[in-house]
Amino acid sequence: MKTIDIEDGIRCVYPMRTYLLTAEDKKGKTNIIAVDWLTVLSRNPPLIGVAISPKRYTHNLIISSKEFVVNIPTISMVNKVLACGTLSGRNTNKFEKLELIKLPSRTLKTNIIEACAAFIECRLVDFKDYGDHTFFVGSIQASYAKEGFLKDLKPILHTKGNSFTTISEKIVKAHI
Amino acid sequence: MKTIDIEDGIRCVYPMRTYLLTAEDKKGKTNIIAVDWLTVLSRNPPLIGVAISPKRYTHNLIISSKEFVVNIPTISMVNKVLACGTLSGRNTNKFEKLELIKLPSRTLKTNIIEACAAFIECRLVDFKDYGDHTFFVGSIQASYAKEGFLKDLKPILHTKGNSFTTISEKIVKAHI
Repeated sequence: MKTIDIEDGIRCVYPMRTYLLTAEDKKGKTNIIAVDWLTVLSRNPPLIGVAISPKRYTHNLIISSKEFVVNIPTISMVNKVLACGTLSGRNTNKFEKLELIKLPSRTLKTNIIEACAAFIECRLVDFKDYGDHTFFVGSIQASYAKEGFLKDLKPILHTKGNSFTTISEKIVKAHI
Repeated sequence: MKTIDIEDGIRCVYPMRTYLLTAEDKKGKTNIIAVDWLTVLSRNPPLIGVAISPKRYTHNLIISSKEFVVNIPTISMVNKVLACGTLSGRNTNKFEKLELIKLPSRTLKTNIIEACAAFIECRLVDFKDYGDHTFFVGSIQASYAKEGFLKDLKPILHTKGNSFTTISEKIVKAHI
């Protein structure tokens, strides 16, 4: 079998879903960050893990507030999602800059992003450094969505750089 | 904003990519497992994490062999991928049963799956229990792909149960 080296092994895992995390600072201001490196960890109890660089403003917010929300964006929001991953909350209010509306969450102090399709509210239960990122583990406190979410979602998949895609319209029913 | 409760919060993160992991038992037999719960953790050094239930045969194989390969399947393999996630390596040789060809990896003892599009060889560097799964952290030793992989990949995305999809043909170039 003929293969070519892929120097950046991480590229092989892409495209990956892109999610928007919200987290609150000590003054009650919610920041937004775009994250690709997120996974489910456990079904019972329901746990989610997300890797965030210590360089990112949101890193300290999660450690101090001990909570975060996973907001599920749709492909129509892709320009704002790129901006959320590029601008820094240290010197930008991303809600204002990107004309996003913040709403209260159900169980946390952190706000949610009104434009998103679904929301997962998490309390921080663990975090651990792996290489150049910190892996934050959240316990799901509440999850809810706009109507039609489960059948109509057009999620964002990050291919590379500023290139994104969504899922195919076609569902394949697999069989053994 | 009107929302509906999503009782299973994990559903909000779906569809997720499905990958095939290979891991070797003490007799040198490689098993295959389908996994959705995989993420990148660090760029430098390159680290990947994957959550696997202790009920799965592969769980002990990774602990004892201290290595695994992430094989990237394509949508054309979806029936075999479903079978890999359903059958158990305890009583089935999945390579034989599913007519998959095994090939040597480059740096590990574990074999790779010839039908897959790309391969990431990982040495186990850490594992930790989170809820009902164990999170295995692997350090990337080698990564390579069939030619055309980076532009032509039709990855598998798991929507639910036996329903899968792939990515849209259309790439969106985002701008701020």
